[in-house]
Amino acid sequence: MSFITLTSDFGTKDHFVGAVKGAIYSELPDAKIVDITHEISPFNITETAYILKNAYKSFPKGTIHIVGVDSEVSVHNKHIVVLLDDHYFICPDNGLISMIASEINPTKIVEITIHNHIESSFSVLDVFVQTACFIARGGNLTVIGKEISSYKKISEIQPKVNQQKNIIIGGVIYIDNYGNVITNISKKVFSEIGKGRDFKITARRYAFTKILNKYNEIVDFAAKDIRHYDGTKLAIFNSAGFIEIAIYRSNLHTVGGASSLLGLDYRDTITIEFFNEQKVEFIPLN
Amino acid sequence: MSFITLTSDFGTKDHFVGAVKGAIYSELPDAKIVDITHEISPFNITETAYILKNAYKSFPKGTIHIVGVDSEVSVHNKHIVVLLDDHYFICPDNGLISMIASEINPTKIVEITIHNHIESSFSVLDVFVQTACFIARGGNLTVIGKEISSYKKISEIQPKVNQQKNIIIGGVIYIDNYGNVITNISKKVFSEIGKGRDFKITARRYAFTKILNKYNEIVDFAAKDIRHYDGTKLAIFNSAGFIEIAIYRSNLHTVGGASSLLGLDYRDTITIEFFNEQKVEFIPLN
Amino acid sequence: MSFITLTSDFGTKDHFVGAVKGAIYSELPDAKIVDITHEISPFNITETAYILKNAYKSFPKGTIHIVGVDSEVSVHNKHIVVLLDDHYFICPDNGLISMIASEINPTKIVEITIHNHIESSFSVLDVFVQTACFIARGGNLTVIGKEISSYKKISEIQPKVNQQKNIIIGGVIYIDNYGNVITNISKKVFSEIGKGRDFKITARRYAFTKILNKYNEIVDFAAKDIRHYDGTKLAIFNSAGFIEIAIYRSNLHTVGGASSLLGLDYRDTITIEFFNEQKVEFIPLN
Repeated sequence: MSFITLTSDFGTKDHFVGAVKGAIYSELPDAKIVDITHEISPFNITETAYILKNAYKSFPKGTIHIVGVDSEVSVHNKHIVVLLDDHYFICPDNGLISMIASEINPTKIVEITIHNHIESSFSVLDVFVQTACFIARGGNLTVIGKEISSYKKISEIQPKVNQQKNIIIGGVIYIDNYGNVITNISKKVFSEIGKGRDFKITARRYAFTKILNKYNEIVDFAAKDIRHYDGTKLAIFNSAGFIEIAIYRSNLHTVGGASSLLGLDYRDTITIEFFNEQKVEFIPLN
Repeated sequence: MSFITLTSDFGTKDHFVGAVKGAIYSELPDAKIVDITHEISPFNITETAYILKNAYKSFPKGTIHIVGVDSEVSVHNKHIVVLLDDHYFICPDNGLISMIASEINPTKIVEITIHNHIESSFSVLDVFVQTACFIARGGNLTVIGKEISSYKKISEIQPKVNQQKNIIIGGVIYIDNYGNVITNISKKVFSEIGKGRDFKITARRYAFTKILNKYNEIVDFAAKDIRHYDGTKLAIFNSAGFIEIAIYRSNLHTVGGASSLLGLDYRDTITIEFFNEQKVEFIPLN
Repeated sequence: MSFITLTSDFGTKDHFVGAVKGAIYSELPDAKIVDITHEISPFNITETAYILKNAYKSFPKGTIHIVGVDSEVSVHNKHIVVLLDDHYFICPDNGLISMIASEINPTKIVEITIHNHIESSFSVLDVFVQTACFIARGGNLTVIGKEISSYKKISEIQPKVNQQKNIIIGGVIYIDNYGNVITNISKKVFSEIGKGRDFKITARRYAFTKILNKYNEIVDFAAKDIRHYDGTKLAIFNSAGFIEIAIYRSNLHTVGGASSLLGLDYRDTITIEFFNEQKVEFIPLN
């Protein structure tokens, strides 16, 4: 029994997702197909990377991940299979893997070459499904493609650090279902650069001098009702290990979330400044 | 093989749902995971209760239901497992169970105490998944928590009846996919109080003196084309057993549904007045 | 093990989908249930037909497809099971099958007659689930209904051809997740009528004299960066075999898709004119 996950920008209304699942089950009736998401913003590779990076690790080793985002084949957009961290990724060579594999080197990369035998205008349904089923049956990757040594790199989503190592300039990489604003600054980078120094995070006209580990660390349960804190803005290391700007118990569809209330959008800049020696007291701007 | 259902406010775009499924499959490759919904309005316990109450009963006895709504653990929001009607519910102790269990007493309630061993800012992924897998393997609940005798009660969504027993004051608890307005007045309460008397339901400036059992009871198929009735407002006992205010063949996204067309929203009041003895003829206000 | 697919206008927030899955698993714990979509526009049979027609073929022979769109039973809306192309469809007799079966004759049609034993205001949960499980167990269709010889026909979505056979008048039948506009003119009809002649497709004030087979056929990779082509309008034979008006790499939620940018909506007219003998040069209107 193989686990095959699906990540795409197909949406869940059209026939695409159903057709792909049907095709997999027709080849492998015992497959376990799991949707990661089909709501990637069309052609958005950064979103795909953030979601897939945080989801794939939970799955059993050997899981096959099909990625249907920006996947029409061309001379500039080859199809590849990457064995990374004991997981298989079937995806276009559009930079996605460089964002997922930033800290781990792939074990193997293969350029899929079965396109010549397949007349297709729906690569995921034809090429990717066939590739996934081949891998699930234990097939050797070199039968469906040729091994290559590198993949397309995209580095734009890495935060930058100044030479003096007291400033990190990062950016917003994702807005989640609650309107929380996720930055590309990981807890690891923050700790390595910060080394325990005091700091100020600036996001537009808002500042934060503390990063929580749990949302309700802002709540003083003894003193006040929890509702008193609804709408409080905060910075937190989220469960994916990144700094996130959030509104306590926000609702993007009614009162708004951090993205709408603080005016923070995809690709906006977030700055962290660290202070040497003496402790400085900061008053949040708002 | 165990059935595990998921109900949450995670949405279906973020990595949360995929990560939770991956974690369950990693522990229990044969689990059958079924989504109930991930589109609960953030932190909305009333919605969660309505949906889960109407869905869980269809599942086989022994099914484990994970509820990821408002689930960050705190001194005021413990995590519990409740065995109720032969189903297991893993959820925060935030009043949800009192809404689901209004007519059935739980067989067992356990406060989960494995948090000390788990460093987590994503309780559902860590604590709830581990608890679910433990139950699925036949583990004894007392190993993962301590038995307790009560859970948090929330009673605000029960309709009220006057002493004279001729008026029921209820409220809107849910707006469904068609824009239908669901009240908290069940067919059972309506029948017990009404005892067959004539009645008038008032919802804002609209009145109804009849409650249908099927939507197309309003249609006189012999006399008129079905399309003649599109847009007619009606009251019905819905399939979940509650009084619902609906628009015949409505479409919330185009012409609108009962909620938008009649101006009825979550928590709005619905009144039913019963009449003694003599039959009174009512003309709907609109 | 049986495959059962679900197609409905229930949405994914309400309890309906979860309840239906629970009911199937209660009867058939080994069933493989696959969602095709639950986001059909309420009561929209044309959409249902387009999506289901393009999804069902990928599934294994013998798959059972439950369709919960406009499914309340009435004298004008019977429930039927249709065996077509070795797939079972359980659906209302509302014209849907005539749209799916335009080129294939059903092997068997049965009117479901088990309603008398079931008190229900949620036909899909009760009648359709019971019917599906009965079929999955290998039951004979005549036990749950009586064989009939025809079903309701709806022909409005077929394109029209003039007597001279140089003009096809079609219409928009579906707008997909990318805002692409799908017409009811198939590659087959286009080829049979066109016979290789030059042509002009007119959609509102836009004209196309070429139909692509892949989206990136418009791109000259040697000459220009791919982003140069973002936003280019084009006509394509889509993967479902229909002529589609698209915008290259469009995003309905941000810059817009073909539907919003070209002002094309469901049911709008698309015309194709074929030219005899001499080649005529056309300049697109925009």
